[in-house]
This record gives sequence, C-alpha cells and structure tokens, in this order.
Amino acid sequence: MRPFTSTIPYSDAIRLVLDGAVPTTRTEHVPLTDADNRVLAQDVTATIDVPPFNRAAMDGYAVIASDTTGASAVAPRALRCVDRVFTGQVPTRTVGAGECIEVATGAPMPAGADAVVMVEDTDRSNDDVRVRAVVMAGQHVGRRGADIAAGQVVVRAGELLSPARVGAIAATGVTGVDVYARPSVALLSTGNEIVEPGQPLAPGHIYDINRFTLSAIAGRHGGVAVALPIAGDSLADLSRALDGALGHDLIVFSGGSSVGERDLILDVLRERGTVLFHGVAVKPGKPTAFGSIGGTPVFGMPGYPTSCLSNGYMLLVPFLRKMARLPPWTPRTIEAPLARRVMSASGRHQFYTVRLVDGVAEPAFKASGDITSMANADGYFEIAADVDAVEAGTKIKVILFT
Amino acid sequence: MRPFTSTIPYSDAIRLVLDGAVPTTRTEHVPLTDADNRVLAQDVTATIDVPPFNRAAMDGYAVIASDTTGASAVAPRALRCVDRVFTGQVPTRTVGAGECIEVATGAPMPAGADAVVMVEDTDRSNDDVRVRAVVMAGQHVGRRGADIAAGQVVVRAGELLSPARVGAIAATGVTGVDVYARPSVALLSTGNEIVEPGQPLAPGHIYDINRFTLSAIAGRHGGVAVALPIAGDSLADLSRALDGALGHDLIVFSGGSSVGERDLILDVLRERGTVLFHGVAVKPGKPTAFGSIGGTPVFGMPGYPTSCLSNGYMLLVPFLRKMARLPPWTPRTIEAPLARRVMSASGRHQFYTVRLVDGVAEPAFKASGDITSMANADGYFEIAADVDAVEAGTKIKVILFT
Repeated sequence: MRPFTSTIPYSDAIRLVLDGAVPTTRTEHVPLTDADNRVLAQDVTATIDVPPFNRAAMDGYAVIASDTTGASAVAPRALRCVDRVFTGQVPTRTVGAGECIEVATGAPMPAGADAVVMVEDTDRSNDDVRVRAVVMAGQHVGRRGADIAAGQVVVRAGELLSPARVGAIAATGVTGVDVYARPSVALLSTGNEIVEPGQPLAPGHIYDINRFTLSAIAGRHGGVAVALPIAGDSLADLSRALDGALGHDLIVFSGGSSVGERDLILDVLRERGTVLFHGVAVKPGKPTAFGSIGGTPVFGMPGYPTSCLSNGYMLLVPFLRKMARLPPWTPRTIEAPLARRVMSASGRHQFYTVRLVDGVAEPAFKASGDITSMANADGYFEIAADVDAVEAGTKIKVILFT
Repeated sequence: MRPFTSTIPYSDAIRLVLDGAVPTTRTEHVPLTDADNRVLAQDVTATIDVPPFNRAAMDGYAVIASDTTGASAVAPRALRCVDRVFTGQVPTRTVGAGECIEVATGAPMPAGADAVVMVEDTDRSNDDVRVRAVVMAGQHVGRRGADIAAGQVVVRAGELLSPARVGAIAATGVTGVDVYARPSVALLSTGNEIVEPGQPLAPGHIYDINRFTLSAIAGRHGGVAVALPIAGDSLADLSRALDGALGHDLIVFSGGSSVGERDLILDVLRERGTVLFHGVAVKPGKPTAFGSIGGTPVFGMPGYPTSCLSNGYMLLVPFLRKMARLPPWTPRTIEAPLARRVMSASGRHQFYTVRLVDGVAEPAFKASGDITSMANADGYFEIAADVDAVEAGTKIKVILFT
C-alpha cells in the first residue's frame, strides 16, 4: 500500500484544472429550435432590416403628422379615411393632405403618412375620422431596421444563446446556427466490486453510482456524457478501457485513485501520460488525480460516491464549463444559522453538506462513501483548512446544489 | 376596431393563471440516465441495503478493536496478518485474537473483525503488522445499510431529481424511474404577415419570432414545445389551427390578441371556450388573453416579440412550472444603480429591461415590437403601476434572465 506522500491545496488544484481546460474549437450546426443555451460559434449578421418596412406600431390611422396640429378632444381634426391596410398587406394608396388610412398594428405604413394616431384617440363615422390628439412625425411608427439593421451583428460568437437571442436570430430569417460542440465526457467507473444497476449483485459487490452522478453533472454543465463499460482493477483492463475513451474530449475515471495496492489509475496516467496532481487537501475527495494522456485531459475521481460527486461540483464543473465556453458557474447561495456544531478535518478544505429545515442548516454529511450525504442535502458550506470546528448558530453561507 | 374595455392588474392575472394550472398526472418511465431534473412520480424504495455488506472504509487492516487497546507509536501492538481481501472479493477467513486481515477500501469486512486500522497507522514486515493507534469497535467500517437501508424511501414522489438523487437511486440497483411527463405546449403563431424563417419574405411580411422564444422558454421550464404551422388571420384558419392543438396540455397562441378588427383569438376563445381575462395592466404585454377550451388552457400572447416573451417569463413560466410540478422559479437578482432616468407607463406594472455595464443598469428597452429590447438585455426591473419615473442613480433590483 502507498500512502499519499503529499496533497495540494484546493486553490492549487482548481488553478491546475482550469489551466488544463482548453475551450473547445469544435463547432456544429444546429437548428435554431435546438440552439437555446448553446454558445454561438460564429457571429450572426443580419441580412435584412427588422422590421423590413416602416410599420404601424398601434391600431389606428396612418396620417400626415402636421395634419393633427392643434387637435384635441374639444377641437378634433377631421380626416377622410381613404383605405385600410391590414398586416401582411401592401398599401396601394398614398395618404394625401387631409386624408388617413386605417392601419392595424404591424401593417406597412402607406406612402405619404409619417405617423399613426391610436384608435383610442379617434371617433369615426363612415369615412369621416375625428382625431382628438396631436401626433409627432414618427409617432407610433416602427421604423424599418429600428430593431435590427441589415449588416448589424445580431449575436456575437462566444455569446450564450437565450430565448431572446434565439428570437433575434429568427427575426432575421435564419433557421440554424453554428455553435460550439458540447465536450464529450467519457465516464469510466472502475473497480472489481462495481456492478451495473439492473444486473444481479454478487456478494461483496455494489452498484455503480458515479457514472450516474457524473453523467447528470456533465449534462447540466455543457457536456455530453458517454458511459463506457465498467473496468476491472487490473492494469490491462484499465489500459484497454482508456483506449476506448481516447476519442473523447475528456476522460473521467472514478475509483482506482486511492492509495490501495490495486489502485491503478495513477499507474496508467504515469505510464501513458502526465500526472498534474494526485491528492487534494479537501474533504471529501482527497484521493483525486488529474493529468492528461495524449493531449486528452483525465480526471481520476475517488470511488466513494460523495467524494466523487463533491469533486464533480468543485473541479469537474469549472473545467467542463471552461471547455464548453460557458460562463463560470455562479451557484445560488443562502445564509442560514448552523443547527449544531460541526467538526472539520484539520488541514483539509471541507465541503460540508447541509439540509435546510425551517431556515436552519442541519448537517447532512454522513460519510464520503454514503451518497445520501449529498442526496439528502440542499447544499454545502465551506470550512477552511485551518478551521477545526464551526459552532452551532454560526451564520453560514450555504451554496445550493440547484 | 375594439379598444380594450378593461385590464386587470398583474397580481390578478398571475393568480388566475396559477389557479388554472393543474399539475400534470401523466407519468412516463425514463432510464435513470435521463432522469436528472425530472420530477419523480412514484417513491423509490430501496430493495437492498447500501452498502449491502459491512465494508472497510479505509485501506488498512481489519482487526478486533480490543486488540489495539493501548497501542501507540512507542508501544505498537503486534498482529499477524493472515489474509488479504480486495474489493469485489469475499473474505474466506475469520479474524481471530491477535490476527488481522489486510483490506482495501470498499472490501467486505472479514468475520471476527469489528474495526479497521488505517494503513498510515501501521508498519509491516512480512506477516508481522505493528499497529500504532487505537481503534474503537466500528471505526473505519461502513456498516451494511448505513447509507440506505432496505425498505427505506430513497427519493419521494414529487421530488425533483438531482445528480445526487439519481446516484442514490442507482445505488439501489434501479435502472429507470417513473417521472411526471413534461407538459406538451402547442405553439401557434398567428398573423397573415408571419413567415417561417428560411422562407422568402414577401413585402409587408416578417419572420416568426415568438415560436422560437416561447419554445426556448418552454424547454427551460419543464415543457416540451410543439410548433404548429403558422395560422392566418381568419376565424376559420384559427379554428382549424386550434383543432390541431387540442391534444396538447397547453396551447399558446401569439398574435391576434390585440384589439384590431381582425384579432381573432379572443373570438375563438369566446366561441369555443372560456375567457378568464383579456388585457393585463403590464408593459410590455398588455394585450394578453387567458382562458380554456375543452379543458385545455389557452394563452393568447401579444404578437409583439418583446411583449410576448416578457409575458412568457411573467405568466407562462409560473404556469408551466406548476403544471410540470417544478418548484417555483426563483430568478437570480443583482442590485445596481440605474444609469439614467426611466419614464414608465402610468397605471401599468412595467417590466423594464436593462443591460449591466460595469455594474450599472443601462436601460435596454426600445419598443415592445423590438426583440432586441430583450436580446440585448441582461434582465429587467419592475416599476409599480403607480410610479411614473425612476430617477438615475436609484438602486434597482435587476432580475436576471439567466
């Protein structure tokens, strides 16, 4: 057995991890309906004006603004309505002095007119329209190109698409966009004791958890999880598993990064690539390795489910988001008093899970091996490496998982 | 033309909308790998203990705890190592007095042993193990069922699945779960002027935006958007479109809910169902209708893209999340000073979009018809109906779109 010779502080680990995350340059074309939440890879430049024509911004009457000068409820101006234009129609008549044309919101402005009087400010009797309010030139008119002008960049490369940005792109008539590809994350659970859920469980065996938690994490933060078969605890097994994983953007092993004689991820990393660190002064999640093989970054996560998932949040999420070109994650936080005293492992930065009950943070951590340490928690708080205990009643900042 | 006779306050609109949202009872079975972020429809009860056996929680030696009494660095206890057990193996020997068995983290505890001494607290020479620390009974042992006990509810019906909860379910060997179905949201853009992006744009026509923005909104908040063909501005067209939409959980029209002569959503709603409101005292988004047809809720959203999307956030999101059984949305907020004075429509609750530039909130609102009023914004702030202006420098609460 090989005890850890050293660990590095979390701050060093996160720096090395972020330094190792290369933003993807792979792109793909997706239909606009699938583009929300994706990162645009190429500027979208408008080829048309939006709106493509001057249009009425209100239901009412297209007028020559100067014809309304002095109009009021007591002294309405009389105009003659000579036509009407609905949306989707093309005006055929010009508005002359003393005339108006009925327009619907969104209808093209007839030639001659330079403003719209709202229907609410008019009375009508046959073709005789009484205007009760003054309008200025341009009033209630949506000017051609006022929303987006042809030649203008609608959304820039590198920006995260949102419902509104997708809408702005649709407005220019575009049906698909180039976005950055989602990094493909090969997930490899290792260990002779690990069994795929759904299979019978022999004595001494347990079901795989880490592939499921890491897969969910990857999916939430811009990655595409690809589950590879569970690998046994032999150098040959691991090396073979690795061969199957090398086409992916990122490889995440779990298990096999502890210090037991048969923990082999480190050996494989050393033999075939580079180890950037092995052992982080955090709890849970100390036995974590990070390196690369043939240019592909490799995480060796602890086999313990809570350790693995905790590192998923603390190390994998920042890495993956940078790789996927997503903005850094800013988790939601809430302040709450700690329900009872919590002891912390000296010398390790601790991520301590809590459950919020009536506004109070109840410790939820059981053991690193217990997935319910996290499944029954709402979030966690951080305890610095040099703090041994946090007293009951202390106001803590709870970082929420959602 | 028919002006609005009345509008209702936003608070009334949201109450009517939420009253009309019936949480779905439709369920579906999904593989566990697709279950993150879904709402569980049936309790998952463990049929096995997790872990399924007592296991070593550390690499080291399985011992009888009382054999370590008084052990220290200066007075180590000598034990004889009689076997070793790796993960996935089944111990065949029993630990007797004065004996120990080497164990790897996760390996089953051999009979006889009741604690594990960490490898770091031992020295070894062949089969002679010197123990330098006292362990208590149960120390460094993961007790069978300590994480999850057989018969225990792992995740309750109604709970939102998270990476950790998915992991807890996997731990019990389950491969799929029953979740609530995502409400199916039929999206219907209406208007003679509306053209599908990708098609040629005739004079007086504009590209559809609302289907894309509403589709993105629906996808983010638990719905499945289904785009129906654009419907023209005739009662026959709309009625036919409606027939095609009635199999869905929710119908969202956009356009045709203003007051023009040919705005017909309201007529269709009145003719075939019930109108709960038409006209909300908000800006943007006043011409909004809500009702139901044959038990299916129907939104009539304004055709103007920013009005439509704003109501998407303000009315559709709360509705959809309740229908999908998702917890209410709690948007992220940030405090920022307003860059310049903003005037507000008197008598209407305004959602005013802003862009954050160097910590200052710059007004981003152009016009309700301009999608860039939202696409170029980071969020919005609310101006109460009885406030006419907000002065430059006022600290406002910006509600972020993401």
